[in-house]
Amino acid sequence: MFSEEKIPNGFVKNIMDINFSNSQRAEVLTQALPYIKRYTGKIVVIKYGGNAMTSPQLKKQVMEDIVLLWLIGVKVVLVHGGGPEINELMERLGKKAEFIDGLRVTDRETMDIVQMVLAGKVNKSLVSMLEAKGGKAMGISGMDGNLIEARIKDAKLGFVGEICNINIAPVSDLLEKGYIPVVSTIGCDKEGNAYNINGDTAAAHIAGAIGAERLIMMTDIAGILTDKNDPSTLIPEVTVREAEKLYGQGIISGGMIPKVNCCIEAIRRGVKDVTIMDGRIPHSILMELLTDEGAGTMFVGDRN
Amino acid sequence: MFSEEKIPNGFVKNIMDINFSNSQRAEVLTQALPYIKRYTGKIVVIKYGGNAMTSPQLKKQVMEDIVLLWLIGVKVVLVHGGGPEINELMERLGKKAEFIDGLRVTDRETMDIVQMVLAGKVNKSLVSMLEAKGGKAMGISGMDGNLIEARIKDAKLGFVGEICNINIAPVSDLLEKGYIPVVSTIGCDKEGNAYNINGDTAAAHIAGAIGAERLIMMTDIAGILTDKNDPSTLIPEVTVREAEKLYGQGIISGGMIPKVNCCIEAIRRGVKDVTIMDGRIPHSILMELLTDEGAGTMFVGDRN
Amino acid sequence: MFSEEKIPNGFVKNIMDINFSNSQRAEVLTQALPYIKRYTGKIVVIKYGGNAMTSPQLKKQVMEDIVLLWLIGVKVVLVHGGGPEINELMERLGKKAEFIDGLRVTDRETMDIVQMVLAGKVNKSLVSMLEAKGGKAMGISGMDGNLIEARIKDAKLGFVGEICNINIAPVSDLLEKGYIPVVSTIGCDKEGNAYNINGDTAAAHIAGAIGAERLIMMTDIAGILTDKNDPSTLIPEVTVREAEKLYGQGIISGGMIPKVNCCIEAIRRGVKDVTIMDGRIPHSILMELLTDEGAGTMFVGDRN
Amino acid sequence: MFSEEKIPNGFVKNIMDINFSNSQRAEVLTQALPYIKRYTGKIVVIKYGGNAMTSPQLKKQVMEDIVLLWLIGVKVVLVHGGGPEINELMERLGKKAEFIDGLRVTDRETMDIVQMVLAGKVNKSLVSMLEAKGGKAMGISGMDGNLIEARIKDAKLGFVGEICNINIAPVSDLLEKGYIPVVSTIGCDKEGNAYNINGDTAAAHIAGAIGAERLIMMTDIAGILTDKNDPSTLIPEVTVREAEKLYGQGIISGGMIPKVNCCIEAIRRGVKDVTIMDGRIPHSILMELLTDEGAGTMFVGDRN
Amino acid sequence: MFSEEKIPNGFVKNIMDINFSNSQRAEVLTQALPYIKRYTGKIVVIKYGGNAMTSPQLKKQVMEDIVLLWLIGVKVVLVHGGGPEINELMERLGKKAEFIDGLRVTDRETMDIVQMVLAGKVNKSLVSMLEAKGGKAMGISGMDGNLIEARIKDAKLGFVGEICNINIAPVSDLLEKGYIPVVSTIGCDKEGNAYNINGDTAAAHIAGAIGAERLIMMTDIAGILTDKNDPSTLIPEVTVREAEKLYGQGIISGGMIPKVNCCIEAIRRGVKDVTIMDGRIPHSILMELLTDEGAGTMFVGDRN
Amino acid sequence: MFSEEKIPNGFVKNIMDINFSNSQRAEVLTQALPYIKRYTGKIVVIKYGGNAMTSPQLKKQVMEDIVLLWLIGVKVVLVHGGGPEINELMERLGKKAEFIDGLRVTDRETMDIVQMVLAGKVNKSLVSMLEAKGGKAMGISGMDGNLIEARIKDAKLGFVGEICNINIAPVSDLLEKGYIPVVSTIGCDKEGNAYNINGDTAAAHIAGAIGAERLIMMTDIAGILTDKNDPSTLIPEVTVREAEKLYGQGIISGGMIPKVNCCIEAIRRGVKDVTIMDGRIPHSILMELLTDEGAGTMFVGDRN
Repeated sequence: MFSEEKIPNGFVKNIMDINFSNSQRAEVLTQALPYIKRYTGKIVVIKYGGNAMTSPQLKKQVMEDIVLLWLIGVKVVLVHGGGPEINELMERLGKKAEFIDGLRVTDRETMDIVQMVLAGKVNKSLVSMLEAKGGKAMGISGMDGNLIEARIKDAKLGFVGEICNINIAPVSDLLEKGYIPVVSTIGCDKEGNAYNINGDTAAAHIAGAIGAERLIMMTDIAGILTDKNDPSTLIPEVTVREAEKLYGQGIISGGMIPKVNCCIEAIRRGVKDVTIMDGRIPHSILMELLTDEGAGTMFVGDRN
Repeated sequence: MFSEEKIPNGFVKNIMDINFSNSQRAEVLTQALPYIKRYTGKIVVIKYGGNAMTSPQLKKQVMEDIVLLWLIGVKVVLVHGGGPEINELMERLGKKAEFIDGLRVTDRETMDIVQMVLAGKVNKSLVSMLEAKGGKAMGISGMDGNLIEARIKDAKLGFVGEICNINIAPVSDLLEKGYIPVVSTIGCDKEGNAYNINGDTAAAHIAGAIGAERLIMMTDIAGILTDKNDPSTLIPEVTVREAEKLYGQGIISGGMIPKVNCCIEAIRRGVKDVTIMDGRIPHSILMELLTDEGAGTMFVGDRN
Repeated sequence: MFSEEKIPNGFVKNIMDINFSNSQRAEVLTQALPYIKRYTGKIVVIKYGGNAMTSPQLKKQVMEDIVLLWLIGVKVVLVHGGGPEINELMERLGKKAEFIDGLRVTDRETMDIVQMVLAGKVNKSLVSMLEAKGGKAMGISGMDGNLIEARIKDAKLGFVGEICNINIAPVSDLLEKGYIPVVSTIGCDKEGNAYNINGDTAAAHIAGAIGAERLIMMTDIAGILTDKNDPSTLIPEVTVREAEKLYGQGIISGGMIPKVNCCIEAIRRGVKDVTIMDGRIPHSILMELLTDEGAGTMFVGDRN
Repeated sequence: MFSEEKIPNGFVKNIMDINFSNSQRAEVLTQALPYIKRYTGKIVVIKYGGNAMTSPQLKKQVMEDIVLLWLIGVKVVLVHGGGPEINELMERLGKKAEFIDGLRVTDRETMDIVQMVLAGKVNKSLVSMLEAKGGKAMGISGMDGNLIEARIKDAKLGFVGEICNINIAPVSDLLEKGYIPVVSTIGCDKEGNAYNINGDTAAAHIAGAIGAERLIMMTDIAGILTDKNDPSTLIPEVTVREAEKLYGQGIISGGMIPKVNCCIEAIRRGVKDVTIMDGRIPHSILMELLTDEGAGTMFVGDRN
Repeated sequence: MFSEEKIPNGFVKNIMDINFSNSQRAEVLTQALPYIKRYTGKIVVIKYGGNAMTSPQLKKQVMEDIVLLWLIGVKVVLVHGGGPEINELMERLGKKAEFIDGLRVTDRETMDIVQMVLAGKVNKSLVSMLEAKGGKAMGISGMDGNLIEARIKDAKLGFVGEICNINIAPVSDLLEKGYIPVVSTIGCDKEGNAYNINGDTAAAHIAGAIGAERLIMMTDIAGILTDKNDPSTLIPEVTVREAEKLYGQGIISGGMIPKVNCCIEAIRRGVKDVTIMDGRIPHSILMELLTDEGAGTMFVGDRN
Repeated sequence: MFSEEKIPNGFVKNIMDINFSNSQRAEVLTQALPYIKRYTGKIVVIKYGGNAMTSPQLKKQVMEDIVLLWLIGVKVVLVHGGGPEINELMERLGKKAEFIDGLRVTDRETMDIVQMVLAGKVNKSLVSMLEAKGGKAMGISGMDGNLIEARIKDAKLGFVGEICNINIAPVSDLLEKGYIPVVSTIGCDKEGNAYNINGDTAAAHIAGAIGAERLIMMTDIAGILTDKNDPSTLIPEVTVREAEKLYGQGIISGGMIPKVNCCIEAIRRGVKDVTIMDGRIPHSILMELLTDEGAGTMFVGDRN
């Protein structure tokens, strides 16, 4: 699984040690009943990426969780990134990464690399893992069926795109035909140029456009912590208004800012609940959706 | 639950004592994945009746199991009897039960009682329990939509019917509309007369006509035992041909004979697996379908 | 048919005496053409109960009328009560009926009896008669598919329920599949408790929820009479506003009040025409719907 | 039925003289119930033409009958001829009719006249009468959607066509959309030439291709009579084999031969019952289909 | 084709002389791509009549154009007139035409002639030409399915009708089933009387009711010319407001007035573009729809 | 376009020089009518790859042709390879290509490169070009939806796969939803391993499985030439049996052998016509499908 020092406090270290009787298994299954009832037939968008995607063991479990949700009738859309793999290929090709304000300058050659890694390698690898677990998946990019229409965000960044429109039909067509759509976040414009699109933003837009019940952002942090160094200070749920206050207090800061912005954006686009979830915990998706325990911080609309 | 002396050997006495972490729960759910995959979209007919139906606690668990199966995409048809309740009302009305060769002589008044108890009381009680658990159920009888066409079996038995035809449309229409059909085994003829139909027989005929993947006969015995008094002699699986030999050896005898006959009949009508299952074990249906452990004796077609 | 003294004034005493030539029959059929055209594809809810249901001969004719309407494309929903049969079983079981303000105190045991008689006996008997006449019927109760959600009306009345919601899907699903839904008016709550629901009220609510063209309340009175003792003073049609005046004038009084209230409720819920019809007249439904002659009093919305 | 002096010449003077009570009407309607049940959803092809079409009063009644059948769910296809109207227009245009072996020599000008009279006048007049009675009709010819593909039968007859193929889609498309298809029997070839097609033959082919339950040939004779001059010698039903014997005996002769040939052809093409019916009797279609009395001679397949 | 003196200025006299290589053909096809994309799946109503319909060669080309549009996915509705053919038959029948204010007095006999010529001859001739070119067409009139409901416009004109309602279902049903509907503009009333309806008016109403993208009025003039005698003064596009000014200036006058009125009426009923097009130019429909060149005058809604 | 020296003999050098009048364009369009009629609604699989894919100008024209076919109702499936791009990336990554019997040894790292280039770069580039031309395309690989199930062909070749099964649903689902499926020929096995699949073979298998009318293999040769150096010796059409003879005669040899094998394989799997077509000729697909001129060699089933 993952090394002990990475395990957040409070989690069973090696659940594999425990043997369940089938009677116990059955009991557990029936206790999941109200949760299954709540999500069956609903759309859940899962953004998967970053370091949470690097452990093969965890990746396998995430795919299992998704296939299970799909089997019990949840309509899962998997949106993925792939930063580390992009870096790796760039390095091998002797391309030096350049950044402006934390955004990667993307010339056409870099864009080709992004496209190859995301749509060619990561996407297909996720698809084949889902199918090996018994799911029915189809991998597309934001270029297919014009899913993500984009334009240049800032000329000096090259092919970094900002989303100008989502044509949700490719995703809803695949859901309708029973597939788990797996989406690489590459955009395109009318002339056929490809754009590097931020994965979290794309997930938020897609979740809004498809009318998702939930958006789950899998990351490698525990959620929003009042004290960054103390996992016990995790904030389990915030409203949009409360989140905005947390910016001021400096509790949301640094790399968390764009991620939280995406969560709020998704809420504004009509998604009911958005969760920043710790992808390093085994089966955190299932725990979040099918048990009474959440993982990470959930954003909800302002009450009233 | 149920009193200790009734618990078959080898079962955990009080599973409620154990607290599962959510992480463990998630693990259990993913382990059910291949089983869910196998049964989702398939039709499973469950015959429920007799003493297995008398404990409110067990009844509640059986209903939970059925709703869970329904939620994960299994098409469940629930066929029920209700002997004990019939006896009770007859007694209260001062009707004396009369039997010929183990079959209840059913005059018109008795038939009215059977109909009221089964279609009016037991059926609706099961429906409302399924709905209270979150299922969508509709209770019908073999008279509705001419589901079970019957004729007199033997004049001296009165309105005891033998099935002459199954019109499966009422059951398949309800499945198509997403309901759990709950069926009282009352038949009728073209003139509108009602008939008392043996529940096991009806379940076998319905399972065959609907093309069920599995028929589960819930009873209050452990299954077929080589030595009636030793639960450890349970025969977990028999082919039709092997079952026929067991009659000769006296291992299948007495009240087991008609039940086993129904199982074989169902196999002959195309049902893949038929199981005589111990309904006194909590969540035995889930264990049978969603874990690697069976409960009771499974009948399968002859291998050749 | 029925004994002479019961025949309302002005009706042919023995229509069976007349022999029709086939040429005449054909003529009659073509004259029904504009009426058939008006109702084909429309939903007509018929409330059937009380003494109108006690004559087997009349019952047979009502069923014939319903099957005919169904055959020519009218979507009939049959809602039934069954007071006399309930009384009979209670008596046989030695239960004494107790009433408060005309409403039967319904303890759990009484509720069981109500359920058994309505959903088990009366419902299935109507279903089998409809099928014997060539119709395709399915009998359900307000518990099936949560059709009638109810709550306690008044604690001292026990399980007498008031309707808090109608989930019309079970009825519309059956209509869509081509069945005549036959509905016992038993409600239930989320906990699965059954409630005794007034049949007229339930019919009014169901007719409104399903968007019925007409609601026909079959009773054993001629309709609203200005002079209760003079059938020639029948009021053939009233608007809601006019009906309200009749309360003041004492013309609508006693047992008629709740029935007329239900008619007005149905109009308010969007049913076009509601008719209190004399169920003792043979084929009164057909006469009402397929000829130029009405039977009883029709309630319509206020003009303007 | 009706008094003899009115049959068949001159027709019943006034069957309206008889006053039916609505109670009687209702009784008649319910007696039609089993007949309605038999034909609802079935396809009935009616060939209408010749002198049976000349009385406006009778025509109106035939249209009423068809609309009634349509309303109660019978799928009626009306195939019509129009010989007398063709003759009339030819005469007015000073065209002289020429016949070879009883078949009209059809030059292009004559074909134009046939087409104008059948598809322009008779067809639309029938359509508008059906619609005035409340039906939903659409009038097409054998040229529309290539319904009747034809070729020259005999060069010296000009545009007299023999059917080489039926493309039934135009008729079945209209039935599916709920229309009464009204068909003029004009054929066409791949080059777009129109052909004069015998109406009885076309009706037989269409009835076979559409899988009709019944084909009714409305004529102005009573049916097949053993003694042409004695209506009481009507043969009510014949098998194909029996019919063939009647040719030899000279009972089927003259103008009856091609008509009977068409009936037999229809039986061979799979139509269950084919009836030569006396169109001069009011409402003979309804009597034939919805009462226990037949009109004319019915052809059925050989029993064996 | 047509004689030289009829060819409008500026058109290639004999395009047949030019031999295209297949490579050129392919190039031309791809250049049509954006136009095809624009009209595929859209409804285009074409009014065809008058002298543009008299040349067999031109008629053949118009039918080719329509079949091509249909093949590439345009939903074409063909509305036709037939004045010259009506005149011809009237003459042959010795009927003298009488006019009041330019409208033909239409007694019942004249109406019969109109109906026979339009629905019987012209309609079926167009249908068979479309089918000979490979299209799938069905010819109906405004009487079929009550498409055009009409009433008497002016008693002294007889059966000249004004449209009181369009029931568009017959046209949309045929489009849905994949046919090219070919419509004769005859109306009818509830009593079944037929009415002579102006073809341009009917086309405008039908185009509005069906939600057509375009209405093309094929005529035998070049369009609206500022100077009637100078084809180079053609006005290619006008808004409704501009058109109204042209009336005042006398540029729209005489026979053009009712035609332009129909165009404006269609725009008011929601048709996007309405074009008066010169039907004498070969393939003018294709040029208008599938190239960058228009033919005639296009009416569009007022810009503001 | 392309440089003159590359133009095969006999082709117009610069078709752009010619200006077509719109009248001529219309004429050309109508002449395509019978060809459009033949292919509309049919499935055409196009294998595109090799050097025919390297000219951006030609690529643009091929995409135009495909979008045009799609617009006129042809169901196009585009299967692509990408050898040159794979070589390029390998070189850049310093991987040395190794071949055994002409097949590339594919270790896991090479497989990753193949996957990235085909599914990530080439596939998405084709998709975005199709969409820029107005088409609706979705790019998938043989891994998506388990489209191409493969296994190791020869252990020493590494991840070179041979097809063991085609699950055609992903392709037919996309066609049903109106997309142009663009397929990268990568296979996978149950464990999720990716395989390098020969593009021609995959195209033949997919064309057979989907029931394609035609399979077009776009290459950079003129077709099968009796004398390799003389384009005038092109064999326009061969049957399977004739093709087999050509092997013996050495006319099919070298690199042509596997390609011709694939053509024959496709014919055996039920594809009607398979064409080896010269992709260097502009709009060769349109010429082949929509004019009377073929391009290359067409394989057809044996006549007998």
